[in-house]
Amino acid sequence: MLISHFHTHMRIIWLMKVAVLGASGYAGGELVKLLDAHRHFEVAALGAHSQAGKRLADVHPHLGGGDRNLVPLDTDLGDADLVFLALPHGASAELGAKLLADGRSVVDLGSDFRMDTPERYESAYGTAHPLPDDLPNWVYGLPELFGDQLAGARAVAAPGCYPTASLLATAPLLAADAIMADGITINAVSGVSGAGRSLRDDLLYGSVDEGVRAYGVAKHRHRPEIEMGLDAFASRADTRVTFTPHLVPMQRGILATVTAPAADGVTEADLSGVLVAFAEPHPCVDVIDMPPQTRWVVGSNRVLLHAVLDIRTGQAIVMAAIDNLVKGAAGQAVQAANLMVGLDETAGLPLAGWMP
Amino acid sequence: MLISHFHTHMRIIWLMKVAVLGASGYAGGELVKLLDAHRHFEVAALGAHSQAGKRLADVHPHLGGGDRNLVPLDTDLGDADLVFLALPHGASAELGAKLLADGRSVVDLGSDFRMDTPERYESAYGTAHPLPDDLPNWVYGLPELFGDQLAGARAVAAPGCYPTASLLATAPLLAADAIMADGITINAVSGVSGAGRSLRDDLLYGSVDEGVRAYGVAKHRHRPEIEMGLDAFASRADTRVTFTPHLVPMQRGILATVTAPAADGVTEADLSGVLVAFAEPHPCVDVIDMPPQTRWVVGSNRVLLHAVLDIRTGQAIVMAAIDNLVKGAAGQAVQAANLMVGLDETAGLPLAGWMP
Amino acid sequence: MLISHFHTHMRIIWLMKVAVLGASGYAGGELVKLLDAHRHFEVAALGAHSQAGKRLADVHPHLGGGDRNLVPLDTDLGDADLVFLALPHGASAELGAKLLADGRSVVDLGSDFRMDTPERYESAYGTAHPLPDDLPNWVYGLPELFGDQLAGARAVAAPGCYPTASLLATAPLLAADAIMADGITINAVSGVSGAGRSLRDDLLYGSVDEGVRAYGVAKHRHRPEIEMGLDAFASRADTRVTFTPHLVPMQRGILATVTAPAADGVTEADLSGVLVAFAEPHPCVDVIDMPPQTRWVVGSNRVLLHAVLDIRTGQAIVMAAIDNLVKGAAGQAVQAANLMVGLDETAGLPLAGWMP
Amino acid sequence: MLISHFHTHMRIIWLMKVAVLGASGYAGGELVKLLDAHRHFEVAALGAHSQAGKRLADVHPHLGGGDRNLVPLDTDLGDADLVFLALPHGASAELGAKLLADGRSVVDLGSDFRMDTPERYESAYGTAHPLPDDLPNWVYGLPELFGDQLAGARAVAAPGCYPTASLLATAPLLAADAIMADGITINAVSGVSGAGRSLRDDLLYGSVDEGVRAYGVAKHRHRPEIEMGLDAFASRADTRVTFTPHLVPMQRGILATVTAPAADGVTEADLSGVLVAFAEPHPCVDVIDMPPQTRWVVGSNRVLLHAVLDIRTGQAIVMAAIDNLVKGAAGQAVQAANLMVGLDETAGLPLAGWMP
Repeated sequence: MLISHFHTHMRIIWLMKVAVLGASGYAGGELVKLLDAHRHFEVAALGAHSQAGKRLADVHPHLGGGDRNLVPLDTDLGDADLVFLALPHGASAELGAKLLADGRSVVDLGSDFRMDTPERYESAYGTAHPLPDDLPNWVYGLPELFGDQLAGARAVAAPGCYPTASLLATAPLLAADAIMADGITINAVSGVSGAGRSLRDDLLYGSVDEGVRAYGVAKHRHRPEIEMGLDAFASRADTRVTFTPHLVPMQRGILATVTAPAADGVTEADLSGVLVAFAEPHPCVDVIDMPPQTRWVVGSNRVLLHAVLDIRTGQAIVMAAIDNLVKGAAGQAVQAANLMVGLDETAGLPLAGWMP
Repeated sequence: MLISHFHTHMRIIWLMKVAVLGASGYAGGELVKLLDAHRHFEVAALGAHSQAGKRLADVHPHLGGGDRNLVPLDTDLGDADLVFLALPHGASAELGAKLLADGRSVVDLGSDFRMDTPERYESAYGTAHPLPDDLPNWVYGLPELFGDQLAGARAVAAPGCYPTASLLATAPLLAADAIMADGITINAVSGVSGAGRSLRDDLLYGSVDEGVRAYGVAKHRHRPEIEMGLDAFASRADTRVTFTPHLVPMQRGILATVTAPAADGVTEADLSGVLVAFAEPHPCVDVIDMPPQTRWVVGSNRVLLHAVLDIRTGQAIVMAAIDNLVKGAAGQAVQAANLMVGLDETAGLPLAGWMP
Repeated sequence: MLISHFHTHMRIIWLMKVAVLGASGYAGGELVKLLDAHRHFEVAALGAHSQAGKRLADVHPHLGGGDRNLVPLDTDLGDADLVFLALPHGASAELGAKLLADGRSVVDLGSDFRMDTPERYESAYGTAHPLPDDLPNWVYGLPELFGDQLAGARAVAAPGCYPTASLLATAPLLAADAIMADGITINAVSGVSGAGRSLRDDLLYGSVDEGVRAYGVAKHRHRPEIEMGLDAFASRADTRVTFTPHLVPMQRGILATVTAPAADGVTEADLSGVLVAFAEPHPCVDVIDMPPQTRWVVGSNRVLLHAVLDIRTGQAIVMAAIDNLVKGAAGQAVQAANLMVGLDETAGLPLAGWMP
Repeated sequence: MLISHFHTHMRIIWLMKVAVLGASGYAGGELVKLLDAHRHFEVAALGAHSQAGKRLADVHPHLGGGDRNLVPLDTDLGDADLVFLALPHGASAELGAKLLADGRSVVDLGSDFRMDTPERYESAYGTAHPLPDDLPNWVYGLPELFGDQLAGARAVAAPGCYPTASLLATAPLLAADAIMADGITINAVSGVSGAGRSLRDDLLYGSVDEGVRAYGVAKHRHRPEIEMGLDAFASRADTRVTFTPHLVPMQRGILATVTAPAADGVTEADLSGVLVAFAEPHPCVDVIDMPPQTRWVVGSNRVLLHAVLDIRTGQAIVMAAIDNLVKGAAGQAVQAANLMVGLDETAGLPLAGWMP
């Protein structure tokens, strides 16, 4: 009997109904994929703006269960207790507030509620926040840095992709005084999905393939978010970083390479030691002994960190690799949701990457 | 209380110990990834040949649990009831026979036991089979075509990647007499991982990127395997196909485009109807109403089929898309193993692909 | 003295003024690049439709001499004796006729004047030709097949990219009765630039990278053009081919893989012999002894051919590789122009490809 | 009469015979391609080490004139006045010295003669220089910085790819005191061809595609070369830079992103002004008003520069884009050779890039 080879154990599975609004974009599609495979969340509704009315399979042919339809954003979400918003910048503010008022929990993957102050918001986005009084209600949902605020939270703003990688590489070392705050330079490279699913000439295959370029130089809106995270985690004020993002010809993945003056007397072993101690309680973070390749985390919620001390210049060079659509967006949103409702942090989240 | 939102149900989980021999290659790495996420199989041992002794994380940095070590192929496998072999051509024959004699079940991802006769083997591989009398003991493990032989089987040869795609597109239509056997032309394109992890100049990034080429023209060893599958499923003898594989600059994915004369009076709706009826009981196969893109199945065990009738020439054009490392290798091996031990066919197998 | 090492000879260089209308697209940009490097053609005007008024450097940052401006299509072209049109389908008909009436010579890279009859045009494009009486005035400018019509011609329609590759692989063998007309199957793969510079979701990097798909199955508009070329070169009528194009993740390059029944008694050496004899007088065509990779011709006007006979099925398998933007568009237009004005066929045309 | 449209002028063409030793690698192949198209250099001999005896077409199928053979490195070079060496590190020293002693001129694309002192060489390569007394005989051949030393020179060491991009972005600003020497951070990304044509697991398509990683962090051998160039051009000593190179999934192209503290009172217009004044006499250098994409220079000897001032942190961010195999290797070698023998700097060098 084949069955005799098996070993038995039992598990009790809890289920919660959730909705995804903004399911037609890249982050939204990734969310649906993760939630469909999540044993504790059940997707009750999929909403979209311009794509409302289409079949999921026509918008995301790679997803199974494609006979589901996308409903308009103002559809009644029934008994969905938790709503994920994956909408363009500016589209979450009113909707997020309304969903909270309805008694639902919300994880916003957009940028509307990430900032701590209206001033910071305006410095990043150039306009006044539409609901400035609501900002304090939202938790900045980077579990490894601010996870203690997530248990029981009902309103969470999931961090941006560059800030996630940049902060995980920088914040632990800054908080431990292993690097100096003055002179932090972050160069990051990102796959193209970070720019979203937009019909722009510079996002055509013919514009992207076989080339690299910087963009948003000295004015990218993720810089204030990075500085906010450093201020908060390292208990500082007015931290300033130079941040230069680059677009490289690949679908996914961000590598943040942080260069910062090491504190006096700090060794390479000290740098690694701080990172290892930081990573220890965090199942999604691993410190490795070689520079990480983004491919190794593509498709996963894993973060790979590595630090080097440049003896000749005294600079610490710290690298962080993530998948911008998973740990930098949909996966992090699920991770935050897991913590909000008391599940294991990694429930439903793949931790193995992609090679080849 | 958060927990009040949850709905309770219970599941009983069975576990079986398995081993992977040949874990250092691309298919082996994919197997480890799938098995690590499989709730019913527990990886008890990972074996390798030249990479034995290394840490898994050094060979496959993308995999979690990287502190596991690769053991030599002749290591005692203890209580592993089922062994997956992902070894180079020729390396499975003796080892597979020995493992069977030890009372273990075996799924061989290699090519040693795929053929039905020593003659077919020799026509494909150019040498005599080392254990010709053993060939009848092995089931050709393409679940959608020969799944009734898998329940309870102890020795399964998982099909090659091109034959998987080619047969799923062709065999149902041939068996239904919707296409003619004379004049079947299969053009297939494959991502580079199909060639394995070999240090060859023509597999360097500098040789592959931004180019396409055919290879093995009129002599690829998967042609006899395709013909064998057609003979077996359509109850024919000496079916002959023209098979031309191509290498394209992508990691994964096979698209087989089959051109064959439609039978007299057959319409495009007839072609689709045969495929839809074939796919209906098979959870990994979907017929869609547009040409499938391989990206939509990358990372998944899903097969996408689509058929068109060319009115002007009377040819049926049938496309099948798979991930060569999942449905074409590791995923299919797990699918076969699921059926061998009585699990649900799709247990542990992702059915959503990758976009972007 | 350094100069003493030099050897002296003299050349007389002729110059002709030309214009490019439709300079903002991919083929137009490639034309400008080739013409800028051409010692006998001098670019006197660059025209565009929606991009008129912009600097060349803003539309094609890769081109030198970027301070030139794009003028509207109806600008007076002054003393430009020869005009290249690289406009979308349908935009060349009236304009081409007018330029001819002005006494200029025209090479049209578009599809308006490629067909020999209004019926063929309608079967390809689904609408009636706007100037059916003009069709006989235009030469189908595939130099290797119809070059004798180019010397002195004033109106030339440059062939499509797929027809160029398909015809060069098929027409010589068909005209030599080495393959049979019944059962010609052409599977072609193309880089993405063949689809032009259009803001379409399916041309985004996030839609194309790491995937392959067929498109236009059984209804692509290049099929009638291929059939026309075969009819003309092999002195046949109503040749029918099955043509399936595929999009692969690369910028440029087309590989056409033609499968056709070999004539009775024809050997592989016969196939190669026909191709070698065909290529001999044509400086852009080389027959090689292995399957060509498209990379080897990217950036060049070169065509690589290779033929195999499949003994088991009696099919000839013939491959042709070209750069779709050079030999399949801009390069071929220059090649035709060279012949029109009496220059060497390869003047200004690179014959070396790209690796890596 | 067609000919009546032509305008006549005359040119006198000089020819010099050259040889390429190390023609089988990527840089060597690119050299052959450039030299074949160069009207003043005629390739008299092609040498290789392990590939000697093979046809050029078997080693570089993309090159025309493939019936030429590769000869051993010790073959008599006859009347070749100028020899290009494109050999692995360490293989040029003895050979270069011997060729000079034979009365030939030499351009070495390798790294053996780039350094100004034995100490600098050892700090970069970890071993003592085999011919330390010869170092002063060689000119460091970066034409835009040290071009005045090239006219009439007989021994030129062509710079490395990263130093070329890094120095062109940094040296003009440092020499003009627009940036501070303390705190120069150079992050560079390179296409894969920079690593050469080596059979290494990390250069396989399956290892490179869809991923980014840093390498040689804090210890790359191009750092001392960059520092040497800055010392020499800015008349400094012991300049120190932090240099972090990254490998990205593309064939070619380097983007160097330099971050350095702007000098007090320097504005963004000042930064651009310095670069524009620097570029003015140099035909291969253009300053543009947006971040350059490497694709725009691929296939060309062009350099694109762009500078931004980050007001918030006071850092200058300067970008330089080159093709690592052209301006970073073979093209620069030809550019240097042009100046050595008194030709126009850009003779035979393409200045248009690649898109798409």
